[in-house]
Amino acid sequence: MAKAPRTDSIRISTALVLGLGRYGEAVCRELKALGVSVLAVDQAPARVDALSDTLSRVIVGDFTNPELLEQVGADDFDLVVVATSGDLGANILVTSHLLQMATGQLWVKAATDQHEVILQQLGVEHIVHPARDMGRRSAHRMVSLARDWMSLGAGAAAVTMAAPDMLLERSAPEARLEKTYGVTVVARLPLNSDRWENVTHTSTFAARDTILVMGSERDLERFATLT
Amino acid sequence: MAKAPRTDSIRISTALVLGLGRYGEAVCRELKALGVSVLAVDQAPARVDALSDTLSRVIVGDFTNPELLEQVGADDFDLVVVATSGDLGANILVTSHLLQMATGQLWVKAATDQHEVILQQLGVEHIVHPARDMGRRSAHRMVSLARDWMSLGAGAAAVTMAAPDMLLERSAPEARLEKTYGVTVVARLPLNSDRWENVTHTSTFAARDTILVMGSERDLERFATLT
Repeated sequence: MAKAPRTDSIRISTALVLGLGRYGEAVCRELKALGVSVLAVDQAPARVDALSDTLSRVIVGDFTNPELLEQVGADDFDLVVVATSGDLGANILVTSHLLQMATGQLWVKAATDQHEVILQQLGVEHIVHPARDMGRRSAHRMVSLARDWMSLGAGAAAVTMAAPDMLLERSAPEARLEKTYGVTVVARLPLNSDRWENVTHTSTFAARDTILVMGSERDLERFATLT
Repeated sequence: MAKAPRTDSIRISTALVLGLGRYGEAVCRELKALGVSVLAVDQAPARVDALSDTLSRVIVGDFTNPELLEQVGADDFDLVVVATSGDLGANILVTSHLLQMATGQLWVKAATDQHEVILQQLGVEHIVHPARDMGRRSAHRMVSLARDWMSLGAGAAAVTMAAPDMLLERSAPEARLEKTYGVTVVARLPLNSDRWENVTHTSTFAARDTILVMGSERDLERFATLT
């Protein structure tokens, strides 16, 4: 049976990014690296200059002004990102204008929990909260061998870490990871290799392997602090 | 053969966090949730007040002053976090003092790429760059079905996403994921379930599963934009 195409997976090929603070600049650079055509707007000429070599289209302007949003054709982009959140009023103002314009996917940066609530109340579907999210991730890395950490939802997480000593020269079943620690080692990156390998029941671990492990956050915290 | 314990995996039980901006506050909250005893310092009484209900020890003070660092016993903590980066001079000053104090693990927040280079030149081992990292992560989420995204190093990444239609009611080998797309579906979270399941060659996918996929960044970008 044929299925109708999913409308939520339209390919993003053009993006409008409003605000070129550190977060907005990083979003622009990465979108460009992913092949998206980006127009960026900021009020500060210095920020616009700094990105003019990287982005083909970056302009100085006050994006809280609805006329500017219309002039740049905000409703023609597949993706619009409100990347500035320092001034709550300005963030809400531009978000409100954009919600009336039937743009493509709208992503808005929140500065605080209360700001996030307001954006939800306005009906914004995609909200990012970078300082809080990175604070959480950093904390997990600081207290464990984890190099990076991603919440999977439902209390689970995935972690990259150095292989703990107890794994060395043992296979995953020998180390009884599921039974003893409640975690699964999904893949390993041997030292000096540039290729991740899926871990099967015959895989053996070596010193200075990097491993990708998943499990509940509680079990992973325990596993990633093993000596 | 018995092995000497690893010295790099000492359990972190006490932390000093300097700077209570959005990032620093999030670090404090998550460290506390992970069972770490946290002392936080900021110059702004309002920020200190805002956290005083959450943290047992949070004080007003100028942490660029080496006397304050000595008074709070900065060298007694397992972990010291310089969580403020808006004022480059202040960030470098406190970092320099701390490097002379033989503290526990030192983590320092960088605001820009050049700031990161300076911290590396000073010999800081753990540098975080939250705005840039979150900008990158957000960009990946914006252009694909991916809900979250983690770089694994060596050009590989792990992604959580909604199961694309082409997976539905098929098993992983039927969908020929490795061969056709170069990616591996590692685990699935069925809708309304709170338990991630490892994906084996007999697993079958259902509508509205969340899946954890790994592969090269390029292959994942392609896979995560499938309709």
